[in-house]
This record gives sequence, structure tokens and C-alpha cells, in this order.
Amino acid sequence: MSVNLGELATLFNCELSGDSNAKISHVATLSSATSGSISFFANKNYKDQLQSTSASAVILQSQDAKDCSVAKLISTNPYLTYAQIANFLHPVKQHKPGIHKSAVISPSSIISKTAHISALVVIGEKSKIGPGVYIGPGCNIGNSCCIGKDSKLMKRVTLDKNVNLGARCIVHPGAVLGGDGFGNARTENGWFKVPQLGGVDIGDDVEIGCNTTIDCGSIGNTIIENGVRIDNLIQIGHNVLIGEHTAIAASTAIAGSAIIGKRCLLAGQVGIVGHIKICDDVNIGGAAVVTKDIKEPGSYSGSIPAEKDSKWKRTIAKFRNL
Amino acid sequence: MSVNLGELATLFNCELSGDSNAKISHVATLSSATSGSISFFANKNYKDQLQSTSASAVILQSQDAKDCSVAKLISTNPYLTYAQIANFLHPVKQHKPGIHKSAVISPSSIISKTAHISALVVIGEKSKIGPGVYIGPGCNIGNSCCIGKDSKLMKRVTLDKNVNLGARCIVHPGAVLGGDGFGNARTENGWFKVPQLGGVDIGDDVEIGCNTTIDCGSIGNTIIENGVRIDNLIQIGHNVLIGEHTAIAASTAIAGSAIIGKRCLLAGQVGIVGHIKICDDVNIGGAAVVTKDIKEPGSYSGSIPAEKDSKWKRTIAKFRNL
Amino acid sequence: MSVNLGELATLFNCELSGDSNAKISHVATLSSATSGSISFFANKNYKDQLQSTSASAVILQSQDAKDCSVAKLISTNPYLTYAQIANFLHPVKQHKPGIHKSAVISPSSIISKTAHISALVVIGEKSKIGPGVYIGPGCNIGNSCCIGKDSKLMKRVTLDKNVNLGARCIVHPGAVLGGDGFGNARTENGWFKVPQLGGVDIGDDVEIGCNTTIDCGSIGNTIIENGVRIDNLIQIGHNVLIGEHTAIAASTAIAGSAIIGKRCLLAGQVGIVGHIKICDDVNIGGAAVVTKDIKEPGSYSGSIPAEKDSKWKRTIAKFRNL
Repeated sequence: MSVNLGELATLFNCELSGDSNAKISHVATLSSATSGSISFFANKNYKDQLQSTSASAVILQSQDAKDCSVAKLISTNPYLTYAQIANFLHPVKQHKPGIHKSAVISPSSIISKTAHISALVVIGEKSKIGPGVYIGPGCNIGNSCCIGKDSKLMKRVTLDKNVNLGARCIVHPGAVLGGDGFGNARTENGWFKVPQLGGVDIGDDVEIGCNTTIDCGSIGNTIIENGVRIDNLIQIGHNVLIGEHTAIAASTAIAGSAIIGKRCLLAGQVGIVGHIKICDDVNIGGAAVVTKDIKEPGSYSGSIPAEKDSKWKRTIAKFRNL
Repeated sequence: MSVNLGELATLFNCELSGDSNAKISHVATLSSATSGSISFFANKNYKDQLQSTSASAVILQSQDAKDCSVAKLISTNPYLTYAQIANFLHPVKQHKPGIHKSAVISPSSIISKTAHISALVVIGEKSKIGPGVYIGPGCNIGNSCCIGKDSKLMKRVTLDKNVNLGARCIVHPGAVLGGDGFGNARTENGWFKVPQLGGVDIGDDVEIGCNTTIDCGSIGNTIIENGVRIDNLIQIGHNVLIGEHTAIAASTAIAGSAIIGKRCLLAGQVGIVGHIKICDDVNIGGAAVVTKDIKEPGSYSGSIPAEKDSKWKRTIAKFRNL
Repeated sequence: MSVNLGELATLFNCELSGDSNAKISHVATLSSATSGSISFFANKNYKDQLQSTSASAVILQSQDAKDCSVAKLISTNPYLTYAQIANFLHPVKQHKPGIHKSAVISPSSIISKTAHISALVVIGEKSKIGPGVYIGPGCNIGNSCCIGKDSKLMKRVTLDKNVNLGARCIVHPGAVLGGDGFGNARTENGWFKVPQLGGVDIGDDVEIGCNTTIDCGSIGNTIIENGVRIDNLIQIGHNVLIGEHTAIAASTAIAGSAIIGKRCLLAGQVGIVGHIKICDDVNIGGAAVVTKDIKEPGSYSGSIPAEKDSKWKRTIAKFRNL
């Protein structure tokens, strides 16, 4: 696909500075861009690359236009405009409806005629696959699951049981939703397993990363609200609630029954203790451990940056002797 | 299923306070309970909910009875009694013996006539599947594995090779047991892979969470003793030994050849350095990093709770200048 | 297999001290060794075991020979010599070329005649499987992937899309390569997904552990250079670059666009912030969090070792009041 720069400006509501007839065929980074590329500038660290880019055009904020000698699309949110243009120039392939002959589907489940079920998929009992849904190869859907309109399960996703997924969700390979929560009652002879009877209730427009695990509720459901974004290798314990539009970066762990507010940002490797409550609009820095309720919006941190061993050893020794 | 409260009291050895003819049909949380629900009280934070619950009955300790206006089952261990009653009211579906026609099984492996092998399972060479075993859809069992009586591998579990699983174990989706340990010898031209020749030896009544990885021994076996409980996304390196009835919460990592005692509790995101030894009856707090032997039972911690950025930045600056 | 000790000395270029006709059939640890075993000594903590071993021979450095009363192979790098001898005594089974009838392969993909494709493998469109490649059962390879000569994908590996794997790589079960990176642009109504259009480019002789995730680039590729070793449950974000012969231990997370140098060692649970650069020959200690560029080779640390709760609480209180 190739399109005029002027057309992009109109379609995506940007001010154009430069040749409206320039042909744009693909997106590229500032440094790898060539003729036909459109790039974007949103991180000041890459200012050198902005000045030297060979892109045919760059999407940027008006105040950065002076540092750019090629054609420009001026946007108040260059990263968003970039994403929209990238979608437009590189559309995702649409899948045809149908069920691959190698899929194994219980007759008690209902599959929409417009859903795509790939090779070697398993679907258990009493599940419902909605219209336009894409189930990638090797996915494994258990009993009593429901997948909403136009959602996509990429390769080898597992929905263990009682998982409700809303519309337009994307779940990436290896994610496991609805596995048993970690519930163990002590006895004199060791642990007694506490039955995990609930499910997972996921809203619309949620994205879940590779090899992430979201446990079912022990009683009642684990809840992920609309628009939440969850990265890779994240643990979400039973009966956690994640509020709307919260985003969580990789390798974070959220213990059971924690409640995370709306529009929060959790960086990578964060730990959230069980049964605590974090209010709306909270940012948690990388690798921080949150051990009690947070009642005030704002930014919170808790990890100590690495240092050279020689310096670190001295500091630690003094820390121990505080 | 519906049962009289008096019958539950007798079956599970509780003192009854209230109407023995009350009909109980299901478990519920204190806050979501309705008529027919039985709930439990074991966490003081939920005292308000105890006082206002609409449950038909609550399982609790005698000293909490005064705060509860509905019928009560008095137990010394309410969480355990709850778990037992939940099992009774919500029994797990039993699977019929048999092998799904899409399973691919080496003729050199032996499958008990009472085992259930689900769709799209692969079983390699010289493995043994014991009586009453359930192998869920998409599980992948390698060579020379042995699965004991009544164990359950939920969906899409991988046993790579040389894994011995005892009786009544449960392994959740995405777990990988018996993958190669991380062994690399330095050479002038980079790393030389050290062969990982051992296996994994898992006792009875062990539960292993979603997407957890337990490596095979490099020589000899990685050992998980009876009754151990392992949550999701946990890494257990080669030749680790985990003692009986130890429980490990999510996202913890245990490096190679570490020895963990019996009845230990490791909270989430804990790190255990390789080749160290932790004695019996040790509790490790969340996100703590254990770098040397622990020889005395008790509780150990090592993570600093998150704080507001403004406070944290000042504290860190002073820490650096200790 | 059984071989004379003298033959091993010659084959692996060691000085022999002891009976060259001793029969060696297998490797063992110092403590579990019996007649016919060859063991190695490389960790001073096991000196007691060296003195009391029942091995037929031990591989060690010349300065340790005095502590060993059985036959010896003297090597400057005993661990490497051990690995080479273990490979020799316990050779890996070779797989015959061929495609299992249950595999589902797009006709637009090209499979070498000498590759082995196991049961229930899926291969998408326009992918290439090179000579001598082993694809284990349940692997799931997407569109436009390329697997180089003699590489092995063990059970249930996922290559999502646009993954180039070099020669002689090993990928362990549950690993997901080429999943979408975590890219989200803020809007007034929540997050807008940023298309992840790149791939993953992996060199030769790379090993990747169980349930590790390596995201595709957002534009351009995520790059893993030759000889890199990556353990289990590691997150590698989009557009990361890992330099040659770097080794990364389990549960580490590397955020997007970070650049890691050559010959670095990252211990377990390390966190690397996005968009930073670590130079060659850097060692990072366990659970350390690296928040800015490292420009000088050497060792860096950042985690505080766990302590008894009583001591820890006092220290934390003082830390907060610094």
C-alpha cells in the first residue's frame, strides 16, 4: 500500500508541513527510515536521530518541528497518531470463518458461524464462542467459558474454566486464564486444598500478554475491567480486581484479593501484597513492593538502583548498622 | 445438592449454634452470601462483613460467635472446615477412563485401564500412567516419565523427560517439569552446554501452579517432597530440594542446588541463591532475597515497602550517602 | 557405553593420574559416585565430598589433586572437561527425518527433508524449517518464521511470527518468541494498541529456557546475538538487543529497547529498565534493578539480603527516618 502524505494528514487530523504528494508506504524508526517511510518523534533521547532521519515524513509535536528537516505531520499525540497510521498502512490480516478439521469441540459448546477456529484447538463443554472471534492454533478452552465478539486468542492460549472474556480482547500465546488460585488450609498432616470454585470475568478491549497467569476466584470471580492492558509473565491471584484502563508491565505479581484502581500504571516486576487496595490513578515504579493500601493518587517507588559492587558493599554494611 | 446444617455439623465435627434444619446448598463469601449459603470468617479485616452477612450459616471460631447473628458452625480451624464443606457441596466431576482418539501415544508406554487421556495429548516412550490418573487436553508427556495413582495433569502440562510424579498430585496448565537446567561451561569461544542428565522426583500430594518451571537435575534429580504446594510462575532450578509440606507463593525463583527445609513458607517474588540451605520451619517474606544459609527457624524479610516518590527520593539520596 | 580412563584423558586432552585402564561408564556427583563413575570438582564448598568420593576418577585442577585419593584427570577447566565427557558418555538420541502424520503444516512453508517434525506440530504460512532441525511435539510455529540448521525446538515451543532462529539453537518447552510487544498509546478513552510489526532475530548457538518470552520488535527486530544463553521465565521486551555470549539467569526482566552488551552475566530476578544501555563485560547481581546506562565493565549489585524479622524491622524503621 502507498498513500499520499496529504491524505494521511486529512485522515488522521494532523497539520501537514511539507509535500502533500510525498508517497508513504510504511512506518519505520527515525534511524532506519528511508524514502517512503513515515516515522515519529516522542522521546527526547532520540533528538539526534530526528535531525538526521531519512524518513519521508515524521509525526511530531509542533514545538519539535524546528529540529526536523523533512516533511512533518503535526500532532498533539504523535505516538497515538503513529499507531493509527501504522494500523492503516499495515492492516492485520482478516481470518475467514470456519473450523479446522483437527479441532476437537464438545457438542455442548456453541460456536458462532463467523468465528475462526484454527488447527488443534480444544473446546470443552458448554462454552460459547462469539461472532468474529479468532481462536489460534493449539488454544485450549475449558468448560463454561464465553468469548465475546471479535476477540482474538493467539496461539496456544489456555482458558481453564469459567472464563468470561468480553469483546475485542487479545490474549497472547501461553497465557493461562482461570487456573486454580493458591488456596491451602493448614492441618496437622500438611495442607488441605481449598476448592477454587469461581471464575475470571474480563471486560472489553483487554489485552493479556504471553505466559501471564490469571487465577479463577476461590468464591466469586477474579475481575479485569474494560480496557486493561497486561504484559507478559504477570501473576494475578484469585479474586483480584483490576480497574478500567490500568496498564501493568511484565513480571509483576499481584497477590490474591488485592484491588487495583482505574487508570493505574504498574511498571515491571512490581509486587502487590494480597488483600490491599490501591486507589485510582496511582503509578508504581519498577520492582516496588506495595505492602499496604494506597489511598492517594500519585507516584510511588520502592526499589534501590544497582551500583558498582565496591560502592554497594560499603552502603549495605552501613545500612545493616543503622 | 442441598443438605441440613445439622448434618454438616455432624459430618465435619463442628459445634452447631442455630437451626439444624437450615438448608445449605453452596458456599459464598460473607458479602455475597444469600439464603442457602454457608460462609466462613478467618480474617479479622472482614469483621464488618461478618456482622452484616446474609448467609444461612457461618463457620467461625468460638470467640467470634458473638459478632455473628446468623447460624454458626464453631470450628477450631474455620478455613479448613470451609474447604472440607466446599468440597462436599461442590464435588469435582469424575472423569471416565479411556483414551481420546486424537491422543498420540508411543507403544512403549503403559497406560492404566482406569486412566483418562484427553484430546490431543502426546505421550513419549517408556512412560507409565497410573490408575485413576487424569491427563487433560493438550498435555505433553516425554520419555521415561511416571505418573502415580489419581494424579491430575490439567490442560497443556509438559513433562519433558525423566519426571516421576507421585500419587494425588495436581499440575496446572502451562507448567513445565523436567526441562533442562541452566548449565554452561565457559570456553574461550563462548558457552559450552553442560548436559542435563537427571530427572525430577516429585512426592505424593504435591500441587504445582500455572506456568511454573521445575528443571531436571544436571546429575541426579531435582526433588520435591510430599505435600509441597507451589504456586504460579515459579522457577525451581536443577538439583533443588524442597522439603515436605513447604508452600511457595507465586513468582518466586529458587536457584540450582538450593535446599529448602520442611514446612517452610516462601511468599511471592522471593529469590533464593543457589547452593544454599534453609532449615525447616522458615518463613520468608515477600520479595526477600536469601543469599546465605538459614540455620534457625523463624521469619525473615528483606524487601523495603514502596513509598510516595517525593519521600522515596529523599530516603534514597540519604541511603546513597550513608 | 564403557571406556578406559586413559582414552578419556587422550580424547579430552587431560593429564592422567591413576590407572589408565579403569573403566568409566557414566558421570556422577562426588557424593553419589560409585565404581565406574567419573565426577568433577569445581566448587570449593564440596571439598569434603572430594576427599571421600567413591568415584573411579575425578576431573579437577592440578592444585586440588592433593585432596583426592582416587584417579584424576587434570584439567585447567574441570567443568568444561566434565561437560565434554558427559556428552561423550551420554550422547543425545538422534531423531530420524520425517513428518508425523498429525502435524498441520501450511503448503506455503518449506520443510527440509532432513528435518524431524513431531506429533501435533502446527506450522503456519511461508515459514522455513532447515536441515537437521528437530521440532518437538506440540510446537506451534507461525507465519514467516525461519529455523536454521540443526536447531531444536523441544516440546510445545511457540514462535508467534517473524522469528528467525539461527543454527544449532535450543528452545525449551513453553517459550514464546515473537509475541506482540507491550505498546499502548494513551487516548482520552483509554489505551490504543500500537501495532507490533517487527520480528525476532536470533543468532547461532543460542539456548532459550522454559516459559521465557521474547517479544517481537514494534518496528524492526528484537535481536539476540550468537551464543547467548537465556534461562527460564525471562521477559525480553520489544526491540531489546542482547550481545554475543551474554548469559541471563531465571526470572529476569528486560524492558523494551534496552541494549545489553557482549559477555555480560545477569543473575536471577534482575530488572533492566527500558531504553538504557549496558556495555560489554558487565555482571549484574541477583535481583538488582538497573535504572541507567552502565558504561564501565565490572560487577554491579542492588539487592539487600534478607534478615531475621526482628533485626529487619529495626533497620527498616531507621532507613525510613534517615
